[in-house]
Amino acid sequence: MPSSTRLSGEARATAADPSAPSAPPRTRRTDPDRRDRIIDACLEVVAEHGVAGTTHRKVAVAADVPLGSMTYHFEGMDELLRLAFERFSQVMSQRFEDRMAAATTRDEALDAVTAIISNDVFSDDRELVLTHELYTFAARRPEYRTLTRNWMAASRRALEQHFDPVTARLIDAAIEGLTIHQAFDPAPRTQLDVSAVVRQLAAIHAADR
Amino acid sequence: MPSSTRLSGEARATAADPSAPSAPPRTRRTDPDRRDRIIDACLEVVAEHGVAGTTHRKVAVAADVPLGSMTYHFEGMDELLRLAFERFSQVMSQRFEDRMAAATTRDEALDAVTAIISNDVFSDDRELVLTHELYTFAARRPEYRTLTRNWMAASRRALEQHFDPVTARLIDAAIEGLTIHQAFDPAPRTQLDVSAVVRQLAAIHAADR
Repeated sequence: MPSSTRLSGEARATAADPSAPSAPPRTRRTDPDRRDRIIDACLEVVAEHGVAGTTHRKVAVAADVPLGSMTYHFEGMDELLRLAFERFSQVMSQRFEDRMAAATTRDEALDAVTAIISNDVFSDDRELVLTHELYTFAARRPEYRTLTRNWMAASRRALEQHFDPVTARLIDAAIEGLTIHQAFDPAPRTQLDVSAVVRQLAAIHAADR
Repeated sequence: MPSSTRLSGEARATAADPSAPSAPPRTRRTDPDRRDRIIDACLEVVAEHGVAGTTHRKVAVAADVPLGSMTYHFEGMDELLRLAFERFSQVMSQRFEDRMAAATTRDEALDAVTAIISNDVFSDDRELVLTHELYTFAARRPEYRTLTRNWMAASRRALEQHFDPVTARLIDAAIEGLTIHQAFDPAPRTQLDVSAVVRQLAAIHAADR
């Protein structure tokens, strides 16, 4: 059974001084993406069981690694959760940034915002759950608000390629609010003319200056 | 010790047919607000331990009632959580509605929205935590979205006393997004001129018509 082989390799690596450069852990050569896989698995366990229900044991099972791998690769659950949510927010951010970077005119930028609201944010229940697990976690643990701040700053930077900072901030807030209100209202998304709303939002500052 | 007296009262009441009108449970007379107190206690346990960490036992301890009270007054944890979140959302809604109802002019309505964003929503970490516990719960359990939908509908109705439905929807989304982005960004709230943003939001539809 492969996992017992891994366990003994892991056990040797853990017993050695991990900072000694002359003795690289054997597992890194035979299973080089193990650390990455654990981070991905952690996110899936959070999606299924919530932060509160996420344990080293469940993540190890989901990643198909021995339990010893967890303490070998991560300082503890706090670090693992931080890395997992960081990865999740980066994936979500990247999609947002790609949409905004692809727009070459202001009209295309508005279409991109409409597409983000209508299609991208909370495109499935997993993303809805993970985003709110992160928000709840950050609500309880202020030290994790660096994650949410970085995510929000990335969105605003992407919007500021096309809009002034105050409009970007307002559009970013509207994206957040509209997507939450759509997700938590059983009425279908089509009830809101997202495109019309976004165009009006963008007209604010143009009209005000 | 009072709780053992309560326990025996509760035990008698539970043994009787609860639907028989001729035999009202004795506990209702000696401790008439017990059910209410359990609902409040449930909310405090959720604030402290999260939905996932909320148990009958913890709520019973927080409410200072015997464990048997829980099953006597509630069908199960799902009903208790629904009632607790319903109460929380009603308290939050009421504050919102009071602000909007007190406004007699459009300018006062805009000031009320500014006050809601700046002072009311997430006025402390408990409210921030409970709101996101509810959102995470509704994300996982679509049947609880009736709660979030009702809350959002109440806010929009309050806004529609002063604004047309589309503007009300947009202002409601902006309140949601701006308060979340302020809460999860360690920068101080004063960085955003909330009043100016709200006035611009409200100008959208006036200008567009």
